[in-house]
Amino acid sequence: MKTLENMTTIEQMEEVTAKLKEQAVKSGAETYEDRVKQQTPHCKFGEDGVCCKNCSMGPCRVSARGKRGICGADAHAIAGRNYLRMIAAGTASHSDHAREILHVLREAKKDGGYQIRDEAKLLRLAEEWNVKTEGRDIYDVAHDVANVGLMEFGKPDGYQLFTKRAPAERQELWKKEGVLPRAIDREIATSLHMTHMGNTADAEYLVRQGVRTGLSNGWGGSMIGTEITDILFGTPQERASEGNLGVLEKNMVNLVVHGHDPAFSEMVVTAAELKELQDYAKSKGAKGLNVVGLCCTANEVAMRHGVRMAGNFLQQENVILTGVCDLMCVDVQCIFPALPKLADCFHTKFVTSSHIARIPGAIHIEFAPETAMEQAKEIVKMAIDNYPNRDEGKIYIPETKQPANVGYPCEVIISKLDGVTNSHVDQLGSYRPAVDAIRSGVLRGAVGIVGCNNPRVRPDYSHFAIMEELLKNDVLIVATGCAAQLATKAGLLNKEAKWCCGDGLRRVCDLADIPPILHMGACVDISRILLLVAGIARDWNVDMNQLPIVGVAPEWMSEKAVSIANYCIGSGIDVYLGIQPQVMGSTQMAELITEGTRKITGAGYIIDTDPKSLVKKIIDGIEAKRAALGI
Amino acid sequence: MKTLENMTTIEQMEEVTAKLKEQAVKSGAETYEDRVKQQTPHCKFGEDGVCCKNCSMGPCRVSARGKRGICGADAHAIAGRNYLRMIAAGTASHSDHAREILHVLREAKKDGGYQIRDEAKLLRLAEEWNVKTEGRDIYDVAHDVANVGLMEFGKPDGYQLFTKRAPAERQELWKKEGVLPRAIDREIATSLHMTHMGNTADAEYLVRQGVRTGLSNGWGGSMIGTEITDILFGTPQERASEGNLGVLEKNMVNLVVHGHDPAFSEMVVTAAELKELQDYAKSKGAKGLNVVGLCCTANEVAMRHGVRMAGNFLQQENVILTGVCDLMCVDVQCIFPALPKLADCFHTKFVTSSHIARIPGAIHIEFAPETAMEQAKEIVKMAIDNYPNRDEGKIYIPETKQPANVGYPCEVIISKLDGVTNSHVDQLGSYRPAVDAIRSGVLRGAVGIVGCNNPRVRPDYSHFAIMEELLKNDVLIVATGCAAQLATKAGLLNKEAKWCCGDGLRRVCDLADIPPILHMGACVDISRILLLVAGIARDWNVDMNQLPIVGVAPEWMSEKAVSIANYCIGSGIDVYLGIQPQVMGSTQMAELITEGTRKITGAGYIIDTDPKSLVKKIIDGIEAKRAALGI
Repeated sequence: MKTLENMTTIEQMEEVTAKLKEQAVKSGAETYEDRVKQQTPHCKFGEDGVCCKNCSMGPCRVSARGKRGICGADAHAIAGRNYLRMIAAGTASHSDHAREILHVLREAKKDGGYQIRDEAKLLRLAEEWNVKTEGRDIYDVAHDVANVGLMEFGKPDGYQLFTKRAPAERQELWKKEGVLPRAIDREIATSLHMTHMGNTADAEYLVRQGVRTGLSNGWGGSMIGTEITDILFGTPQERASEGNLGVLEKNMVNLVVHGHDPAFSEMVVTAAELKELQDYAKSKGAKGLNVVGLCCTANEVAMRHGVRMAGNFLQQENVILTGVCDLMCVDVQCIFPALPKLADCFHTKFVTSSHIARIPGAIHIEFAPETAMEQAKEIVKMAIDNYPNRDEGKIYIPETKQPANVGYPCEVIISKLDGVTNSHVDQLGSYRPAVDAIRSGVLRGAVGIVGCNNPRVRPDYSHFAIMEELLKNDVLIVATGCAAQLATKAGLLNKEAKWCCGDGLRRVCDLADIPPILHMGACVDISRILLLVAGIARDWNVDMNQLPIVGVAPEWMSEKAVSIANYCIGSGIDVYLGIQPQVMGSTQMAELITEGTRKITGAGYIIDTDPKSLVKKIIDGIEAKRAALGI
Repeated sequence: MKTLENMTTIEQMEEVTAKLKEQAVKSGAETYEDRVKQQTPHCKFGEDGVCCKNCSMGPCRVSARGKRGICGADAHAIAGRNYLRMIAAGTASHSDHAREILHVLREAKKDGGYQIRDEAKLLRLAEEWNVKTEGRDIYDVAHDVANVGLMEFGKPDGYQLFTKRAPAERQELWKKEGVLPRAIDREIATSLHMTHMGNTADAEYLVRQGVRTGLSNGWGGSMIGTEITDILFGTPQERASEGNLGVLEKNMVNLVVHGHDPAFSEMVVTAAELKELQDYAKSKGAKGLNVVGLCCTANEVAMRHGVRMAGNFLQQENVILTGVCDLMCVDVQCIFPALPKLADCFHTKFVTSSHIARIPGAIHIEFAPETAMEQAKEIVKMAIDNYPNRDEGKIYIPETKQPANVGYPCEVIISKLDGVTNSHVDQLGSYRPAVDAIRSGVLRGAVGIVGCNNPRVRPDYSHFAIMEELLKNDVLIVATGCAAQLATKAGLLNKEAKWCCGDGLRRVCDLADIPPILHMGACVDISRILLLVAGIARDWNVDMNQLPIVGVAPEWMSEKAVSIANYCIGSGIDVYLGIQPQVMGSTQMAELITEGTRKITGAGYIIDTDPKSLVKKIIDGIEAKRAALGI
């Protein structure tokens, strides 16, 4: 087996975690591992999705003793309603993040804290959205674009504008099946209404609305979030970075940005580069300022600034346990409410910055676009002031870190493909070379590996096992979110990771000068994967569900993940799950999510909690798609 | 004790239910009482609100063994999040109902199935919403008004327009406290985002968002729903009707409309009046067509047509058990999914009509404004065709029914008050006479009794016990929803019910020619109660929280009720609950909902599951408000 020298294995990561756990014990700090023990075994009714809390006659649950809730809702209705509510909440979260970014765009000014960094992308979007651009100030255009974007959340009529980016066949299918998404917030409200006591009890309609609500996220909220973030902060470029806890520096002020929405962390990164603050850090005995990222905020700032990545979801406590996290500033989503209490066991200052994520015990500095720079400076100064407060006895910085190449949005992928195109013969700016590589079998297909960590499985192990096997089998990987972070930590975002690949994929990596796993961003950026797949489908002249391209969420945890899975399914992309959706107490739901959606959108879930057999199913699935295409 | 001759007591109602239960047993039909037994005892974690299903690491629950979920969320965060989600779902339900009605208004045509029945109200609303009216066709005005209304759900900027109807002090307070509601769907999405894994864990902010989301329902969705329904179908007038199962007729085709949204049931009522269908009914051996209502659809059609009311939430199965329900047509909300299976044990046809409430086993005829009349005729015909299929051996129609006066929206109340005003001295069209009656002590105050049934308590008993005691104590009652239906069944909507009242209230009833309990409509019409209280506050020149007027939900069950409770609290109206909100596993939440909101909005919950002591607290609360006003 080919392999990568200096790869960090899961076992090595686990050794570090074990040492940090010792740090926790010494400091009397509780970590998620303790809480997992306290919470295990989980309630089986909840795990199976057959507990209903949607009215105060209950809670009711389906058991041998009572097959229906008091109202008469059966397992299918209850599991279906719970499932749709998860999708609604996930959609609300991703999309509301996008709305915040639109509000920042609307506040952008030529001389303001927030400016337009990608004018070309803004102009392209303005044209797509019928916003006049000729002879206009770019900021006037930006504000009009922001207003069009904001209407996508609440317009009384019409469908999500970005759905027009999908292949024509797909759009037709959405229309025919009644899942073309309307205003994002309306799909959310409809989902809550349908699941209210005494409404829809037919699981099929709950699943259909789940697909539609998911699509309003993928081809709505998330795609808007990604586009506007690129316009404001620049479309990511290929960059070198590093990842894992070793990016924390003993002799520097460590400021960790954590969460998902980059609006504030962008300012923190900028503030930390100011000479006055660098000097101030030195005045406190530090060698300088070290801003690093956690979770998807890490992905955002790494893609745009090369800011180094401390880790993913289940590493958030570890960062504090090193004893050198001088300040952690969080924005929204996936932030353990346990962190302030943990920070209290160390010297770490813990700062919340959003009205969406207020956490008891935190210092709250509420981000506002107009004051963001001043607030960012205040936070950086707070981190510096805290540097001398470290307790030497509590410090342990693992050395582990890996070099990584990040920043592969569709634009960069296309430019890489242009690099292997013979410009005399072929058209530039297309996915044709990728189509050719897949068609010829040099690449067997492509897989998007996304999603969270989940202590239900050995953390990061599934990500790793699946990636390793796919690479060996000449399957190109695109990754976002916590999955991308695992790839970073393992060293798989390094171009040298081609040595883990089959011959075909290695050759593609060499030719295109890419690592075999392309870091496409945060979880909101899975919209980039949609566009990639849509683009390849268009250049192949097939619908999205025909391609040997699938999605995998080996360790998914959040409601956002369920929403994402549904926009993938809606887009015809099969989704392989390593964690069971909590609907399995209903035979009908189990059928609907695996086979039922297939009849509607041409895609469904394939679920297997064993990563070894899951990856086999993925490869079989890809080969089956190839066979159906006659390649 | 004064009393009402011929009142129907709870015991008499229970006797009927017991007989119908025998019918069920004979027919092998399951009813909610069976399911209550199967579901009891309920899960204590769920009842206490300390079970979290918001991500797939869990479910987690707070116990002595594990005080925090895996992420670190404690009882306060978990209970607070669950609570906010209930409010969001309730708001979505009430408001989405309003949105449907706005869509109907937008389809209204001079010669169409849906027409404008209250032009004056439309014109007043157009003026309020800055829609031009002069020289315009009334339908053009209507369509513009509908579009303004639809934007209330999704407008990116600004606050709910109807909040301007509140007293100025209240509006100021909302602004100051940050609870002035924005677009309705946005508040819903924000609530879901805040409660997503890794977001707000501080219960206070969850409760604040709950108030804001509730206000977007009360002064948004629900109020829009009520206004537009009045415009389309006419503002209710005082009318005679009857209520309880005795309204079902042995020799007529019984067609029952059930749910909440009157758009379709209005058509069914109209269709049933057509001579061709009346004749068709006769051709099948029936004496005619008898359309009766259930739940809030009953309230809607009773207020506007005098259509008789078969009963409230926990009576929905009883209607079918009589064996003479030839067809039940449902729209949305509070519809037992058990009904199709129950209908199968009898001859009853069960028809769903909304994409929001699809129920397995139902005949589905999807309502659309443009085809509504044809669909309504189809349904009436289906009911008639089913009349000969009754099984004589399964028939038992209880004789119990009571006469009722219904239809007391604010406009009718004002006209009643005008009737007792000396027009030479006093201003007409105000609540001054009511203010004077309360100030003088002839009335001690007023109470809105609202909400559902809930088998956690003896059905309807709390409603009854509280009403009886309040009337004796000279407290005027306004009622909606299932509470109003209980009053109907008991005979308390009869003007003769003055004989149950104290001397002061009886004198008011005589003077104003009203029953002591005023039926104000469906649960969406609690917005009418808001306007009533706001109007009285304005005419008294105090804020809403100062008045000796409170709300009571003795037997609440649905998430809508939690949303309603929150807009009452937000509006300064104390809410007395006879069922515990499912948050009591958190001491902080228990404090926040009873005392915490008091510091923000001047109102809170008072909770007591014993109706006898709850009513004492209500009277004490009213007297305390009087004392504070110095009266």
